[in-house]
Amino acid sequence: MNTRASEYPVVRLKSKADRRIRQGHPWAFSNEIEMDETARGLPPGVPVRLETANGKALGIFLFNRHPLIAARRISRDPTAVVDVAFLEGRLRRALALREALVGVPFYRLVHAEADGLPGTIIDRFGDKLVLQINTAGMEGLQPQLLEALDRVLAPRHILLRNDTPARELEGLSQYTEVLRGTFSGSLEVQENGTRYFADSGEGQKTGWFYDQRENRAFVEQLVRGAGLKRVIDLYSFSGGFGIQAALGGAEEVTLLDRSTAALDLARQAAEANGVTGRCQFRKSDAFAALEHLARKGAPHDLVIADPPAFVKAKKDLPQGLRAYRKLARLASGQVAAEGYLVICSCSHHVERARFAEQVHRGIEDCGRKARVLRTAGAAPDHPLHPGLPESEYLKAMVLALD
Amino acid sequence: MNTRASEYPVVRLKSKADRRIRQGHPWAFSNEIEMDETARGLPPGVPVRLETANGKALGIFLFNRHPLIAARRISRDPTAVVDVAFLEGRLRRALALREALVGVPFYRLVHAEADGLPGTIIDRFGDKLVLQINTAGMEGLQPQLLEALDRVLAPRHILLRNDTPARELEGLSQYTEVLRGTFSGSLEVQENGTRYFADSGEGQKTGWFYDQRENRAFVEQLVRGAGLKRVIDLYSFSGGFGIQAALGGAEEVTLLDRSTAALDLARQAAEANGVTGRCQFRKSDAFAALEHLARKGAPHDLVIADPPAFVKAKKDLPQGLRAYRKLARLASGQVAAEGYLVICSCSHHVERARFAEQVHRGIEDCGRKARVLRTAGAAPDHPLHPGLPESEYLKAMVLALD
Repeated sequence: MNTRASEYPVVRLKSKADRRIRQGHPWAFSNEIEMDETARGLPPGVPVRLETANGKALGIFLFNRHPLIAARRISRDPTAVVDVAFLEGRLRRALALREALVGVPFYRLVHAEADGLPGTIIDRFGDKLVLQINTAGMEGLQPQLLEALDRVLAPRHILLRNDTPARELEGLSQYTEVLRGTFSGSLEVQENGTRYFADSGEGQKTGWFYDQRENRAFVEQLVRGAGLKRVIDLYSFSGGFGIQAALGGAEEVTLLDRSTAALDLARQAAEANGVTGRCQFRKSDAFAALEHLARKGAPHDLVIADPPAFVKAKKDLPQGLRAYRKLARLASGQVAAEGYLVICSCSHHVERARFAEQVHRGIEDCGRKARVLRTAGAAPDHPLHPGLPESEYLKAMVLALD
Repeated sequence: MNTRASEYPVVRLKSKADRRIRQGHPWAFSNEIEMDETARGLPPGVPVRLETANGKALGIFLFNRHPLIAARRISRDPTAVVDVAFLEGRLRRALALREALVGVPFYRLVHAEADGLPGTIIDRFGDKLVLQINTAGMEGLQPQLLEALDRVLAPRHILLRNDTPARELEGLSQYTEVLRGTFSGSLEVQENGTRYFADSGEGQKTGWFYDQRENRAFVEQLVRGAGLKRVIDLYSFSGGFGIQAALGGAEEVTLLDRSTAALDLARQAAEANGVTGRCQFRKSDAFAALEHLARKGAPHDLVIADPPAFVKAKKDLPQGLRAYRKLARLASGQVAAEGYLVICSCSHHVERARFAEQVHRGIEDCGRKARVLRTAGAAPDHPLHPGLPESEYLKAMVLALD
């Protein structure tokens, strides 16, 4: 990759298609690109010099004519060379930010576009890295990225979790591969002074949802401040919220999940943090459990509902919104008088205001009154590209019910 | 106020005007109300039993036919009696929540609709309360509210800051009155372990902006974590952000404000917290100072811009949006390489997404790149009524610039 920038092939936008990009948006869509012979001949993911129809340079983009997002900016500098040194610079900046923001080496190190590495996710677990490469462009740069990672962090263990559905759109195969070291057994996580365990091979994402770090810290403070005793975590996964609630002083915490493997990790976390006696683990679907609990009628001081995305594609929106409303209704029904509800959505396609509306309706359906104490997004190691506000996927609401 | 609920006059909505309220919205607008002889004859602010056109009870509302918001719900229970005991219940609930959420008796005790007391603000400064009553309904209930406050808190000092423009819409006069005790000199505030001083007689609101408590704590952590040294707080008011930055380890903090009185309070806070040597105080307009600084070119590791509302009325929206964009542009210009920008809006009329867009544009205008680390609202002692998402006024963005 010692190609001079001027040697990158030139791809042009159609006339008048440049405004959004000139205003800072980092993507060009396939219908905005002049698909001439050059463009059609380029292998998926190559760096190109993108220009307006009039030949004004817009920077270096990674180009793949197949998906809807056909070009993703990697540098605004049209003379940039995307080599190991370039990627090293991006990684050093990302690392410095995380070191400033998080006290321990457990965080999302790279959050895609916002960190200047399109479609690339890197989560750090001490000396272990889990990578997710979601674009053909970064797939092509993988050798350089790994070399840059060596220069910056020299990680002893690297796992490639290239098994996301997003890769299909880019024409990439889905696979998981240990590139270096070992990933047997669970990964240890440190967060808010608590020890957790993640499974890098199972479950969603890279094994741990660092995005909820600050929301979990808030819940711990709430449990402590309000003296909450009975807590249920309806989608406990590996115990992120539930263990934190127990550490905050809750005496009876029920951790519910459909996955035995996730519950095992949660149990392991309970032991590591000395709260096994305060925790119960139940393998169950959240909705089934809520309907069961509704008949039993034993309310909780705090109900936590942090489900996987109900809306994975735009077409699922109406159904997904109804599911959030139903979840809010059933979960509210399990909140004791003057208790609390934490309810989250990580659906990209559900805007913050629409999610809040469904939560409001669900609580109304249940005949409860509530006030919203907090609406938060992902922790700051999941920064947002200011030109892509739509990439703000996480919504975590904390409500006090009457 | 020993009237039985059934004795409250009945006011009816027009046909089909009840849907929003039945979905949980707490207001009826004047054009939705059947302004019959009874309604027209009611003195401003009296409790009424609001009904649909078909006679279905919607609860007890405080009614004032003059403003656009003609009826504000105070209870969903159509048999409720709004007396001292009723108000005491609301206050006890509000107090319990704050005690759970904030470790010291310095907070917003009552945040209007979200706490079930329409248009009523009560800020607590230890044994001093500052009240703001913005509706004729609560003005009429003032004697009962004060008696209820005595039952719940027995405050030694009470100041009525009834000098808000909102009162005009309700046909209420504007005045300030010490109802009990004394309010000479400054009020002491404790926040995030820091001592501040507020002036209850001057400045905006009730003297202190508790809504920024958590955002200030975040800034302190950021300054500490990132080792930021040079900080400028462009609208320092009484020092909320600036002193926190100095306590986080910043060595040169410039606190800028147009008000000498505010800067005096900030100076007092610097002394009380032992950071006088790290702080400079400058009386100046922020825009003038930014233009001056732009010529000087001495960048800061962190620029904080938390201005008063640029958009006070809907008609000011286009001009206000331009002002936010300009502020973002000029403030970005003063951020050092790899420095940070904190920029806020407390304009009700500027939605979160539109504010973010202006900030993005301003940063682009300045030719800088940025990532959004955090977008937060008001602290949880400023809860939100879930049926009034539009009342979410505060937007605080933290950005990392390249």
